[in-house]
Amino acid sequence: MITNDLLKQIQFIKEIDKIKYIQRRTCLLNSDRPENDAEHSWHLALMAIALSEHANKPVDILKVIKMVLIHDIVEIDSGDVFVYDKSKSHKNTEEEFAAAKRIFGLLPENQAKELIDLWKEFEDGETDDAKFAKSLDKFEPLLQNFSNNGGTWDKYNVTYNEVYTQKKSINKGSDTLWEYAENLLNESVDKGILKK
Amino acid sequence: MITNDLLKQIQFIKEIDKIKYIQRRTCLLNSDRPENDAEHSWHLALMAIALSEHANKPVDILKVIKMVLIHDIVEIDSGDVFVYDKSKSHKNTEEEFAAAKRIFGLLPENQAKELIDLWKEFEDGETDDAKFAKSLDKFEPLLQNFSNNGGTWDKYNVTYNEVYTQKKSINKGSDTLWEYAENLLNESVDKGILKK
Repeated sequence: MITNDLLKQIQFIKEIDKIKYIQRRTCLLNSDRPENDAEHSWHLALMAIALSEHANKPVDILKVIKMVLIHDIVEIDSGDVFVYDKSKSHKNTEEEFAAAKRIFGLLPENQAKELIDLWKEFEDGETDDAKFAKSLDKFEPLLQNFSNNGGTWDKYNVTYNEVYTQKKSINKGSDTLWEYAENLLNESVDKGILKK
Repeated sequence: MITNDLLKQIQFIKEIDKIKYIQRRTCLLNSDRPENDAEHSWHLALMAIALSEHANKPVDILKVIKMVLIHDIVEIDSGDVFVYDKSKSHKNTEEEFAAAKRIFGLLPENQAKELIDLWKEFEDGETDDAKFAKSLDKFEPLLQNFSNNGGTWDKYNVTYNEVYTQKKSINKGSDTLWEYAENLLNESVDKGILKK
Protein backbone atom coordinates (compact mmCIF):
# COMPACT_ATOMS: atom_id res chain seq x y z
CA MET A 1 0.00 0.00 0.00
CA ILE A 2 1.23 3.47 -0.88
CA THR A 3 1.57 5.23 2.45
CA ASN A 4 2.41 8.78 3.34
CA ASP A 5 5.78 7.49 4.56
CA LEU A 6 6.52 6.03 1.13
CA LEU A 7 5.78 9.38 -0.51
CA LYS A 8 8.18 11.08 1.90
CA GLN A 9 10.87 8.48 1.20
CA ILE A 10 10.52 8.98 -2.54
CA GLN A 11 10.74 12.73 -2.10
CA PHE A 12 14.02 12.19 -0.24
CA ILE A 13 15.31 9.83 -2.95
CA LYS A 14 14.59 12.44 -5.61
CA GLU A 15 16.16 15.29 -3.62
CA ILE A 16 19.47 13.56 -3.02
CA ASP A 17 19.98 13.12 -6.78
CA LYS A 18 21.43 16.63 -6.60
CA ILE A 19 24.58 15.33 -4.92
CA LYS A 20 25.67 14.05 -8.35
CA TYR A 21 26.26 17.66 -9.42
CA ILE A 22 28.51 18.59 -6.50
CA GLN A 23 32.08 18.54 -7.70
CA ARG A 24 35.07 18.02 -5.47
CA ARG A 25 38.51 19.46 -6.21
CA THR A 26 40.24 16.09 -6.49
CA CYS A 27 40.00 14.21 -9.77
CA LEU A 28 39.41 10.58 -10.66
CA LEU A 29 42.49 8.37 -10.76
CA ASN A 30 44.86 9.21 -13.63
CA SER A 31 42.45 11.87 -14.83
CA ASP A 32 41.68 15.56 -14.90
CA ARG A 33 37.94 14.98 -14.47
CA PRO A 34 36.77 16.12 -10.99
CA GLU A 35 35.01 13.56 -8.85
CA ASN A 36 31.50 14.31 -7.64
CA ASP A 37 30.08 13.60 -4.20
CA ALA A 38 28.01 10.57 -5.27
CA GLU A 39 31.05 8.89 -6.84
CA HIS A 40 33.17 9.79 -3.82
CA SER A 41 30.61 8.39 -1.37
CA TRP A 42 30.25 5.19 -3.40
CA HIS A 43 34.01 4.72 -3.39
CA LEU A 44 34.29 5.24 0.37
CA ALA A 45 31.59 2.60 0.93
CA LEU A 46 33.60 0.11 -1.12
CA MET A 47 36.73 1.09 0.82
CA ALA A 48 34.84 0.42 4.06
CA ILE A 49 33.93 -3.05 2.77
CA ALA A 50 37.46 -3.82 1.58
CA LEU A 51 39.46 -2.26 4.43
CA SER A 52 37.46 -2.74 7.64
CA GLU A 53 39.96 -5.27 9.02
CA HIS A 54 42.47 -2.41 9.27
CA ALA A 55 40.37 -0.31 11.64
CA ASN A 56 42.13 0.23 14.98
CA LYS A 57 39.06 -0.94 16.86
CA PRO A 58 36.32 -3.34 15.69
CA VAL A 59 33.70 -1.36 13.76
CA ASP A 60 30.01 -1.80 13.00
CA ILE A 61 30.46 -2.09 9.25
CA LEU A 62 26.81 -1.33 8.42
CA LYS A 63 27.05 1.88 10.40
CA VAL A 64 30.34 2.88 8.76
CA ILE A 65 28.92 2.23 5.30
CA LYS A 66 25.80 4.28 6.05
CA MET A 67 27.95 7.12 7.41
CA VAL A 68 30.16 7.39 4.34
CA LEU A 69 27.16 7.07 2.00
CA ILE A 70 25.38 10.03 3.63
CA HIS A 71 28.26 12.17 4.95
CA ASP A 72 28.26 14.65 2.05
CA ILE A 73 24.50 14.95 1.44
CA VAL A 74 24.44 18.24 3.37
CA GLU A 75 26.61 19.72 0.60
CA ILE A 76 23.49 19.85 -1.59
CA ASP A 77 22.71 23.00 0.40
CA SER A 78 26.06 24.06 1.83
CA GLY A 79 28.48 23.17 -1.01
CA ASP A 80 31.88 21.48 -0.91
CA VAL A 81 34.61 23.26 1.06
CA PHE A 82 38.13 22.52 -0.20
CA VAL A 83 40.12 21.05 2.63
CA TYR A 84 43.17 23.31 2.07
CA ASP A 85 41.12 26.50 1.66
CA LYS A 86 42.21 28.58 4.66
CA SER A 87 39.63 31.31 3.98
CA LYS A 88 36.72 29.00 4.82
CA SER A 89 35.59 27.44 8.06
CA HIS A 90 35.81 23.66 8.23
CA LYS A 91 33.78 23.35 11.37
CA ASN A 92 30.44 21.64 11.52
CA THR A 93 28.63 24.84 10.64
CA GLU A 94 25.12 25.93 11.37
CA GLU A 95 24.56 25.96 7.63
CA GLU A 96 25.44 22.27 7.41
CA PHE A 97 23.24 21.40 10.35
CA ALA A 98 20.33 23.24 8.78
CA ALA A 99 20.99 21.31 5.56
CA ALA A 100 20.98 18.00 7.44
CA LYS A 101 17.69 18.89 9.10
CA ARG A 102 16.11 19.98 5.83
CA ILE A 103 17.26 17.08 3.64
CA PHE A 104 17.12 14.13 6.06
CA GLY A 105 13.97 15.76 7.43
CA LEU A 106 12.19 14.87 4.20
CA LEU A 107 12.10 11.29 5.50
CA PRO A 108 9.64 9.94 8.07
CA GLU A 109 10.59 11.09 11.55
CA ASN A 110 12.35 7.96 12.84
CA GLN A 111 14.47 7.65 9.69
CA ALA A 112 15.27 11.36 9.69
CA LYS A 113 16.47 11.11 13.27
CA GLU A 114 18.64 8.07 12.50
CA LEU A 115 20.40 9.77 9.58
CA ILE A 116 20.83 13.15 11.31
CA ASP A 117 22.36 11.34 14.31
CA LEU A 118 24.64 9.31 12.02
CA TRP A 119 25.75 12.43 10.18
CA LYS A 120 26.48 14.20 13.50
CA GLU A 121 28.39 11.18 14.76
CA PHE A 122 30.53 11.27 11.62
CA GLU A 123 31.14 15.01 11.93
CA ASP A 124 32.06 14.74 15.62
CA GLY A 125 34.48 11.92 14.82
CA GLU A 126 34.59 10.62 18.38
CA THR A 127 33.29 7.05 18.08
CA ASP A 128 35.35 4.18 16.66
CA ASP A 129 32.97 3.94 13.70
CA ALA A 130 33.25 7.65 12.94
CA LYS A 131 37.03 7.65 13.32
CA PHE A 132 37.36 4.85 10.77
CA ALA A 133 34.86 6.47 8.39
CA LYS A 134 36.83 9.73 8.58
CA SER A 135 40.08 7.89 7.90
CA LEU A 136 38.62 6.59 4.65
CA ASP A 137 37.40 10.07 3.71
CA LYS A 138 40.91 11.44 4.18
CA PHE A 139 42.64 8.51 2.51
CA GLU A 140 40.89 8.48 -0.89
CA PRO A 141 42.25 11.87 -2.12
CA LEU A 142 45.82 10.70 -1.39
CA LEU A 143 45.44 7.88 -3.90
CA GLN A 144 43.91 10.33 -6.38
CA ASN A 145 46.58 13.04 -6.06
CA PHE A 146 49.38 10.48 -6.17
CA SER A 147 48.02 9.05 -9.43
CA ASN A 148 47.58 12.55 -10.87
CA ASN A 149 51.16 13.79 -10.52
CA GLY A 150 50.28 15.79 -7.43
CA GLY A 151 46.74 16.73 -8.45
CA THR A 152 45.35 19.36 -6.09
CA TRP A 153 48.64 19.53 -4.13
CA ASP A 154 50.30 20.82 -7.26
CA LYS A 155 47.38 22.91 -8.54
CA TYR A 156 46.87 24.79 -5.25
CA ASN A 157 50.49 24.82 -4.05
CA VAL A 158 49.90 22.65 -1.01
CA THR A 159 53.08 21.58 0.77
CA TYR A 160 54.07 18.30 2.42
CA ASN A 161 53.63 19.83 5.87
CA GLU A 162 50.11 20.99 5.12
CA VAL A 163 49.12 17.60 3.75
CA TYR A 164 50.81 15.83 6.66
CA THR A 165 48.96 18.01 9.21
CA GLN A 166 45.64 17.52 7.45
CA LYS A 167 46.01 13.75 7.00
CA LYS A 168 47.75 12.70 10.22
CA SER A 169 44.41 11.98 11.88
CA ILE A 170 43.96 9.01 9.55
CA ASN A 171 45.78 7.22 12.37
CA LYS A 172 42.84 7.79 14.71
CA GLY A 173 40.84 5.31 12.64
CA SER A 174 43.60 3.11 11.26
CA ASP A 175 47.32 3.03 12.06
CA THR A 176 47.80 0.75 9.07
CA LEU A 177 46.20 3.16 6.60
CA TRP A 178 48.23 6.01 8.08
CA GLU A 179 51.44 3.98 7.65
CA TYR A 180 50.51 3.42 4.00
CA ALA A 181 49.60 7.12 3.62
CA GLU A 182 52.87 8.31 5.15
CA ASN A 183 54.85 6.12 2.75
CA LEU A 184 52.81 7.54 -0.12
CA LEU A 185 53.58 11.12 0.97
CA ASN A 186 57.30 10.39 1.24
CA GLU A 187 57.26 8.74 -2.19
CA SER A 188 55.42 11.80 -3.53
CA VAL A 189 58.20 14.05 -2.25
CA ASP A 190 60.83 11.75 -3.78
CA LYS A 191 59.00 11.85 -7.12
CA GLY A 192 58.82 15.65 -6.97
CA ILE A 193 55.02 15.80 -7.01
CA LEU A 194 54.74 17.15 -3.44
CA LYS A 195 56.94 20.00 -2.17
CA LYS A 196 58.65 19.61 1.17
CA MET B 1 51.52 -3.14 9.37
CA ILE B 2 51.36 -3.04 5.59
CA THR B 3 50.49 -6.57 4.59
CA ASN B 4 50.21 -8.22 1.22
CA ASP B 5 46.45 -8.29 1.76
CA LEU B 6 46.39 -4.50 2.16
CA LEU B 7 48.26 -4.07 -1.11
CA LYS B 8 45.70 -6.30 -2.84
CA GLN B 9 42.83 -4.33 -1.32
CA ILE B 10 44.31 -1.05 -2.51
CA GLN B 11 44.79 -2.48 -5.98
CA PHE B 12 41.07 -3.35 -5.98
CA ILE B 13 40.12 0.12 -4.72
CA LYS B 14 42.11 1.71 -7.56
CA GLU B 15 40.69 -0.62 -10.22
CA ILE B 16 37.04 0.02 -9.39
CA ASP B 17 37.52 3.77 -9.94
CA LYS B 18 36.87 2.92 -13.61
CA ILE B 19 33.16 2.38 -12.88
CA LYS B 20 32.84 6.18 -12.74
CA TYR B 21 33.35 6.29 -16.51
CA ILE B 22 30.62 3.78 -17.37
CA GLN B 23 27.60 5.67 -18.60
CA ARG B 24 24.07 4.39 -18.44
CA ARG B 25 21.37 5.41 -20.92
CA THR B 26 19.09 6.98 -18.32
CA CYS B 27 19.82 10.53 -17.19
CA LEU B 28 19.85 12.26 -13.82
CA LEU B 29 16.52 13.64 -12.64
CA ASN B 30 15.30 16.60 -14.71
CA SER B 31 18.46 16.44 -16.79
CA ASP B 32 20.00 15.29 -20.05
CA ARG B 33 23.25 14.25 -18.37
CA PRO B 34 23.61 10.44 -18.36
CA GLU B 35 24.12 8.78 -15.00
CA ASN B 36 27.23 6.70 -14.46
CA ASP B 37 27.44 3.37 -12.65
CA ALA B 38 29.03 4.78 -9.49
CA GLU B 39 26.28 7.39 -9.09
CA HIS B 40 23.63 4.76 -9.86
CA SER B 41 25.04 2.32 -7.29
CA TRP B 42 25.26 5.05 -4.64
CA HIS B 43 21.65 5.97 -5.26
CA LEU B 44 20.45 2.37 -5.00
CA ALA B 45 22.26 2.01 -1.65
CA LEU B 46 20.42 5.07 -0.33
CA MET B 47 17.16 3.65 -1.70
CA ALA B 48 17.88 0.40 0.16
CA ILE B 49 18.35 2.38 3.38
CA ALA B 50 15.20 4.47 2.86
CA LEU B 51 12.87 1.81 1.47
CA SER B 52 13.74 -1.49 3.17
CA GLU B 53 10.47 -1.54 5.14
CA HIS B 54 8.66 -2.03 1.83
CA ALA B 55 10.42 -5.31 0.95
CA ASN B 56 7.95 -8.21 0.71
CA LYS B 57 10.06 -10.27 3.07
CA PRO B 58 12.44 -9.11 5.82
CA VAL B 59 15.86 -8.43 4.28
CA ASP B 60 19.43 -8.38 5.54
CA ILE B 61 20.00 -4.69 4.88
CA LEU B 62 23.81 -4.91 5.00
CA LYS B 63 23.72 -7.62 2.34
CA VAL B 64 21.30 -5.66 0.15
CA ILE B 65 23.47 -2.54 0.39
CA LYS B 66 26.61 -4.49 -0.49
CA MET B 67 24.82 -6.10 -3.45
CA VAL B 68 23.68 -2.84 -4.98
CA LEU B 69 27.06 -1.20 -4.35
CA ILE B 70 28.89 -3.93 -6.28
CA HIS B 71 26.30 -5.16 -8.80
CA ASP B 72 27.64 -3.15 -11.75
CA ILE B 73 31.38 -3.48 -11.10
CA VAL B 74 31.62 -6.22 -13.76
CA GLU B 75 30.67 -3.58 -16.34
CA ILE B 76 34.23 -2.24 -16.06
CA ASP B 77 35.07 -5.16 -18.37
CA SER B 78 31.76 -6.08 -19.98
CA GLY B 79 30.10 -2.66 -20.45
CA ASP B 80 26.53 -1.56 -19.80
CA VAL B 81 23.80 -3.31 -21.79
CA PHE B 82 20.71 -1.16 -22.34
CA VAL B 83 17.73 -2.98 -20.89
CA TYR B 84 15.52 -2.45 -23.97
CA ASP B 85 18.22 -3.40 -26.50
CA LYS B 86 16.82 -6.57 -28.09
CA SER B 87 19.99 -7.25 -30.08
CA LYS B 88 21.99 -8.01 -26.92
CA SER B 89 21.80 -10.83 -24.43
CA HIS B 90 20.75 -9.85 -20.92
CA LYS B 91 21.70 -13.16 -19.36
CA ASN B 92 24.44 -13.52 -16.81
CA THR B 93 27.07 -13.98 -19.50
CA GLU B 94 30.40 -15.73 -19.38
CA GLU B 95 31.97 -12.35 -20.07
CA GLU B 96 30.42 -10.91 -16.90
CA PHE B 97 31.46 -13.89 -14.84
CA ALA B 98 35.02 -13.58 -16.11
CA ALA B 99 34.89 -9.88 -15.17
CA ALA B 100 33.67 -10.71 -11.67
CA LYS B 101 36.49 -13.22 -11.23
CA ARG B 102 39.10 -10.79 -12.51
CA ILE B 103 38.01 -7.68 -10.59
CA PHE B 104 36.83 -9.14 -7.28
CA GLY B 105 39.75 -11.55 -7.65
CA LEU B 106 42.13 -8.64 -7.02
CA LEU B 107 41.09 -8.88 -3.35
CA PRO B 108 42.39 -11.43 -0.84
CA GLU B 109 40.76 -14.81 -1.42
CA ASN B 110 38.08 -14.75 1.30
CA GLN B 111 36.91 -11.25 0.31
CA ALA B 112 36.97 -12.14 -3.39
CA LYS B 113 34.78 -15.16 -2.71
CA GLU B 114 32.32 -13.14 -0.63
CA LEU B 115 31.84 -10.50 -3.34
CA ILE B 116 31.68 -12.98 -6.25
CA ASP B 117 29.04 -14.94 -4.33
CA LEU B 118 27.10 -11.75 -3.56
CA TRP B 119 27.24 -10.68 -7.21
CA LYS B 120 26.01 -14.12 -8.35
CA GLU B 121 23.22 -14.04 -5.76
CA PHE B 122 22.11 -10.66 -7.12
CA GLU B 123 22.26 -11.87 -10.72
CA ASP B 124 20.31 -15.06 -9.92
CA GLY B 125 17.67 -12.99 -8.13
CA GLU B 126 16.28 -15.93 -6.18
CA THR B 127 16.81 -14.92 -2.54
CA ASP B 128 14.68 -12.34 -0.72
CA ASP B 129 17.68 -10.01 -0.48
CA ALA B 130 18.43 -10.27 -4.21
CA LYS B 131 14.77 -9.83 -5.17
CA PHE B 132 14.58 -6.60 -3.20
CA ALA B 133 17.93 -5.35 -4.55
CA LYS B 134 16.74 -6.03 -8.10
CA SER B 135 13.49 -4.18 -7.44
CA LEU B 136 15.49 -1.08 -6.52
CA ASP B 137 17.63 -1.44 -9.66
CA LYS B 138 14.50 -1.53 -11.81
CA PHE B 139 12.73 1.23 -9.91
CA GLU B 140 15.30 4.05 -10.14
CA PRO B 141 15.09 4.53 -13.97
CA LEU B 142 11.30 4.93 -13.71
CA LEU B 143 11.75 7.99 -11.51
CA GLN B 144 14.40 9.29 -13.92
CA ASN B 145 12.39 8.80 -17.12
CA PHE B 146 9.25 10.22 -15.53
CA SER B 147 11.12 13.38 -14.52
CA ASN B 148 12.68 13.65 -18.00
CA ASN B 149 9.48 13.74 -20.08
CA GLY B 150 9.87 10.09 -21.04
CA GLY B 151 13.69 10.03 -21.15
CA THR B 152 14.90 6.77 -22.71
CA TRP B 153 11.29 5.60 -23.36
CA ASP B 154 10.91 8.51 -25.71
CA LYS B 155 14.43 8.50 -27.11
CA TYR B 156 14.39 4.79 -28.01
CA ASN B 157 10.67 4.43 -28.78
CA VAL B 158 9.94 2.08 -25.94
CA THR B 159 6.23 1.38 -25.43
CA TYR B 160 4.15 0.99 -22.28
CA ASN B 161 3.91 -2.76 -22.84
CA GLU B 162 7.68 -3.14 -23.09
CA VAL B 163 8.26 -1.11 -19.95
CA TYR B 164 5.49 -2.98 -18.12
CA THR B 165 6.96 -6.36 -19.08
CA GLN B 166 10.45 -5.31 -18.08
CA LYS B 167 9.43 -3.72 -14.77
CA LYS B 168 6.68 -6.07 -13.58
CA SER B 169 9.19 -8.13 -11.61
CA ILE B 170 9.62 -5.21 -9.20
CA ASN B 171 6.75 -6.95 -7.41
CA LYS B 172 8.99 -9.93 -6.63
CA GLY B 173 10.91 -7.72 -4.21
CA SER B 174 8.23 -5.22 -3.23
CA ASP B 175 4.51 -5.17 -3.99
CA THR B 176 4.41 -1.61 -2.67
CA LEU B 177 7.11 -0.31 -5.01
CA TRP B 178 5.40 -2.07 -7.92
CA GLU B 179 2.09 -0.41 -7.01
CA TYR B 180 3.85 2.96 -7.03
CA ALA B 181 5.59 2.08 -10.31
CA GLU B 182 2.37 1.01 -12.00
CA ASN B 183 0.71 4.29 -11.03
CA LEU B 184 3.73 6.14 -12.42
CA LEU B 185 3.47 4.27 -15.73
CA ASN B 186 -0.26 5.02 -16.03
CA GLU B 187 0.38 8.68 -15.23
CA SER B 188 3.13 8.68 -17.88
CA VAL B 189 0.65 7.43 -20.48
CA ASP B 190 -1.88 10.08 -19.40
CA LYS B 191 0.80 12.78 -19.71
CA GLY B 192 1.74 11.52 -23.18
CA ILE B 193 5.35 10.71 -22.26
CA LEU B 194 4.89 6.93 -22.68
CA LYS B 195 3.08 5.42 -25.68
CA LYS B 196 0.46 2.75 -25.07
